[in-house]
Formats: sequence, structure tokens, C-alpha cells
Amino acid sequence: MRLAIDAMGGDYAPEEIIKGSLEALRHFQDLEIVLIGRNEVLRGLEGKDKRLNLVYTSEVIENDEAPVTAVRRKKDSSMVIGLQLLKDEEVDAFLSAGNTGALMAGALLTLGRIKGIDRPALAPILPTLNGATVLLDAGSNTNCDAQNLIQFAVMGNVYAQKMFGIKSPRVGLFNIGAEEEKGNEVVKKAFEELKKSKLNFIGNVEGRDIPYGVCEVVVCDGFVGNAILKSMEGIASVISQLLKEELTRNIFTKIGALLIMRGLKRITKKMDYTEYGGAPLLGIKKPVIKAHGNSKAKAIFNAIKQAKNFVDNDVLNHIKKEIESMGDELSG
Amino acid sequence: MRLAIDAMGGDYAPEEIIKGSLEALRHFQDLEIVLIGRNEVLRGLEGKDKRLNLVYTSEVIENDEAPVTAVRRKKDSSMVIGLQLLKDEEVDAFLSAGNTGALMAGALLTLGRIKGIDRPALAPILPTLNGATVLLDAGSNTNCDAQNLIQFAVMGNVYAQKMFGIKSPRVGLFNIGAEEEKGNEVVKKAFEELKKSKLNFIGNVEGRDIPYGVCEVVVCDGFVGNAILKSMEGIASVISQLLKEELTRNIFTKIGALLIMRGLKRITKKMDYTEYGGAPLLGIKKPVIKAHGNSKAKAIFNAIKQAKNFVDNDVLNHIKKEIESMGDELSG
Repeated sequence: MRLAIDAMGGDYAPEEIIKGSLEALRHFQDLEIVLIGRNEVLRGLEGKDKRLNLVYTSEVIENDEAPVTAVRRKKDSSMVIGLQLLKDEEVDAFLSAGNTGALMAGALLTLGRIKGIDRPALAPILPTLNGATVLLDAGSNTNCDAQNLIQFAVMGNVYAQKMFGIKSPRVGLFNIGAEEEKGNEVVKKAFEELKKSKLNFIGNVEGRDIPYGVCEVVVCDGFVGNAILKSMEGIASVISQLLKEELTRNIFTKIGALLIMRGLKRITKKMDYTEYGGAPLLGIKKPVIKAHGNSKAKAIFNAIKQAKNFVDNDVLNHIKKEIESMGDELSG
Repeated sequence: MRLAIDAMGGDYAPEEIIKGSLEALRHFQDLEIVLIGRNEVLRGLEGKDKRLNLVYTSEVIENDEAPVTAVRRKKDSSMVIGLQLLKDEEVDAFLSAGNTGALMAGALLTLGRIKGIDRPALAPILPTLNGATVLLDAGSNTNCDAQNLIQFAVMGNVYAQKMFGIKSPRVGLFNIGAEEEKGNEVVKKAFEELKKSKLNFIGNVEGRDIPYGVCEVVVCDGFVGNAILKSMEGIASVISQLLKEELTRNIFTKIGALLIMRGLKRITKKMDYTEYGGAPLLGIKKPVIKAHGNSKAKAIFNAIKQAKNFVDNDVLNHIKKEIESMGDELSG
């Protein structure tokens, strides 16, 4: 498996991206990495590993740039070049922790959509009490119709089957109440369609159900998905900060902290999204994975592992087959 | 101040509602409570306190009932009677932990909207690192236009001024990115309007900013607000459950737990929404407060305290004046 990685994207680029990449090379013997970035950034990596290839680019797409303009103008950016390598079949997948909107826009322009999918979705994994849940869409599509939501459900279902190894993942529709009549018109229509589908649809799920792991797939529009994802991250991060402050307050709390350290580590490992890697852009023709913007080496390592599983399990072809087999059902 | 309380609404009704009410009567000498509920529920409370009045009703609106139908049919429900008492000026405010949709529908039908407000909003308070933030709307309006969002901002601003005692609360527009060009059309339009307003508008805020307390007012549509609120609740509740499991694992962790107990209590107190009371239905002509469905006595006590502050600070009249003074600006 050959993976192209954007060395320039993310809050801790390039150092942490490079560190995570080298760690992954040591760990996976069947992995080849093509690291893409500026000359000065990749300097010193030449000859470091025979499975590490370097591609030099002159430009970088910043986080605050307007996505479409950025990918059209910056033809020699690490992100655009990475997508191009994937299109040219020089690599099997592309990973970036950079500007999410630009990655999606660039992937659409360069690689295109799977036939039958109107809008690709950003599909991060959320840690839960019972394992993990894939949430889609989490940020690409700020206005969705019912048909988009159904397509997300079909893709999420295949993703959960192949990546979590679950035969019949439970699929939930995100809503603001459990009852069938809740929500706006789009959600109500999607509910009807999902009920008729062959998916293992468990009905509406609410924000407070998700972290309890009531289902393996949660479907919603991108605005709502992004709100859910970042709200959960925010509150978890604040609680973790408050805990650190309290545990280091004095000698007694420090002893207390030592006694519960293993437990705290277990919780962190369980609920830490960086353990789960990145978010694929499901519905794009080839495997593109978005790592979290604040990824450090460990998160990059896990995103690489995930990209590898994604390719090794041939998730995209399974999605393509599923969509084809559904045919008219999906075209609204 | 005379407060009507729905003894029948909420997961822990009637016991915890009654307990919280009696506690509030002991605590606030200038409070009178009118407790509304079924005969068998209020039995034994007669003569308990001369500031406690009882109103007997025969019906209860359940959580899974369709709101409008429920309030139209169940004329003798605790919720409808409470709203009627408020309309007839028998009480100064009404508090219920029951069906949120029914409370809003009933309040609209019985009491009506403040002139100039197209849609009232459910406005809960979120705990943050720096105090508290009022989030509106959190569930009533699943489709909002820009004008609705502006009206929420104006109401939230007055609410934060009067309830938090802040002269110029910071107002944030919920969005899926900090940049001005992010989000859907409604949010973009609202951004432009808020920028021109005299509010202390700080721009877009994301889910992960909210718990850090970057602003005192967060504006969004009800579907998104509900998603934010419940996602935060869900993840906080899961973390708290995991902590409890780890701290009681063995003798060492139990000793550790003892050493850090005071710190944990401080965190709980800081981040526990039950400390902050209920959510007013802002935009309704009279003070109606929704307590959380899973309120126990402490949460009810705090919701009563909040209802009292709401009335004592004359928040609704300040909102009415503000809306009047803005006149055409708000009518889109």
C-alpha cells in the first residue's frame, strides 16, 4: 500500500506529521509513504527509509483560505499535488490534516464522486462507551435533502461493516427527539425512507445517546454533524483541563492522581478521538482521509493505520457495489 | 413573587418536583408556590406551608405526546392549567419539567408572543470555564431564517445583561468555522446583520469554543442548539460514568478518589447544568421556565431560583423595551 501524505497541513505540521509518518513506516512493513511538502521541510529526510519517498512542492493551502479558490490557484500546493498523485494512481490513498473544505473541494475537482452519490461526506469516528460510531456528514454539506441523508446511511453502513467488522451495523438518524414525528421536514422524510430500507435502522438518536454507543452509524447534515463533533470535543477538552488543574493542586491531590493514573489513562484511551484516526471523505472515487487539524504524531500514526485498513478492506469498492445494487432506490 | 409549578412534568415527578419546591419555600421567604397536580400526588401537602397553594388537576401531558394536540385536548392538565393561571395573573411565572414542545405550544396558544418576536426560543444556560453562556434557540424552532437569529441575539443579550449582570455581553453566532464566509445562507446573512447591530458581536463561534466561555450568548437554530446541548450533556455524562467506574475499581483507586474528592466536586459544581436552573421560553409574553426533564430536587430548586431572578429582574419588560426601541431594524 502506497500512501501520499500532506506534510504541510494541520496545526502541528510539518514536525508532527513527519514524526507520525516515520513511526508508521517502522510499524507497518508493507507500507510505502510519499511525503509531500516544501523543500526546507523535507530536508534531512532524504535516504532516511527506502519506503519513504519525497515530493517537493512550493505552495501551501492555509486553513483560512476559501476552499475552491485555494485549490484552483495553488496548483503546486502539497494538497493539490497529493490528490493528483492519487488520480494518476501513483498512490493508493491520500492523507491530509489541512483545510477540510479545500480537501473536499480538491477531491471533488480532481477525483470526482462515486456514481450514485450526490454529495460526499466527511465521516469521522466518535469514541463511545461501547466502541465507536461513524458520524456522517460532519462538515462538508451544510444543507442536505433526505436523499443525501439516505446515501450517507448506505455509505456509513458499509464503512462500519468493513472497518468495525460488524455484519449488520445499527444505523441511527440524528434528531432532536426519539419520537418519529420530531424534527424538520428533511429528517422526517429521511426517517420514512430509512424505515423502508434494508438497513438495520434503529430510528432517531439524540445527542446524548451517541456517546453511549447506541448505534454504529449516525446520519445527519454537515452543519449539525460538525456541531455535534466539535461540541463533544470542546466539553471533553474542558473537563480534561479542569481535571489536570485539580489533580496537581497540592501534594495530596498529586498522590491521589498517582493512585488513579491507570484508570484515567484507560478513560483517555477509550474516549480520545486521536486513537481512532482520521475521517474519510466517503463518496469520493478514491480513498482520501482527513486527519484532525490538531493531530500530533500519534493521531497521524492512527490516521495512517486507518487509511491502510480502508484500502486493505477495499471499502470504496464495497460502497460502489452497494450503491449500484440499490440503483433506483437511491436516486430519489 | 408567586410561582406556579407543574408537579406532574419530568422524569422524577412528582416526588423530586415537590421536594425541590418545599426546599425553595424554606429558602426564599418572599416566595409563594402554587403546585399543580393530581389529587393523589398532592395529598398530604395540605397545610404544609402557608405559602404553598395546591391546584388539583385530572390530566397529565406525557413526554411522547404530540405537543399541539396534547395542549388542545388536555384542558385539565397540570401544564395547561399552569399556563392559564399565568395568563389570568394569578401567578407571576410558571415552571415545568414536562414535555418541552407542549410547553412551547401551550405558551404560544395561551400567552402569545412578545410583539416584534416571530418565534420564541428555548434558552438554556451552559456552564463554561469562565462562567455561563445562554444558548438560544435550543429546540423549539427547527428551521430559522436570519431574522429569527437576530431576534434570538437581541433577547439573549438582554437575558445575559440582567441575569449574569454583564453590561455588554459578548454575542457569538454558532457556525462550523470561525471565518466569515463559513456556513449556510441563513448564517451568512445573520452574520452580516449582527455585524451592523449595536450588539457586542464577536463573530462566529464553534462547538469547541463554547465550553471555554468565549461569549455569554450563543445564537443558532433550534435543531443545531438542541444537538449542541444534548451532545455536551451526553459526553459529560459518559466521562462522569467512566470516572466513577475507575475510582471505585479497587482499594488504591478508592483512596485516590478520597484524596481528589474535593477537586472532583468543584468540577461537578462548575460544569453541572443542574446548578444553573432551567431554560426560559424567551419571546413568550409572560415568564415560562422549562426545567430539564431529568431534574431532581436540586435542579428544581435552582430552576425556581432562576425563575425568581427572572421575575425580580423584570427581564421580559427589558426585552420588550429593547425590541420596541429597535423597531424596523428587527422586522426584516
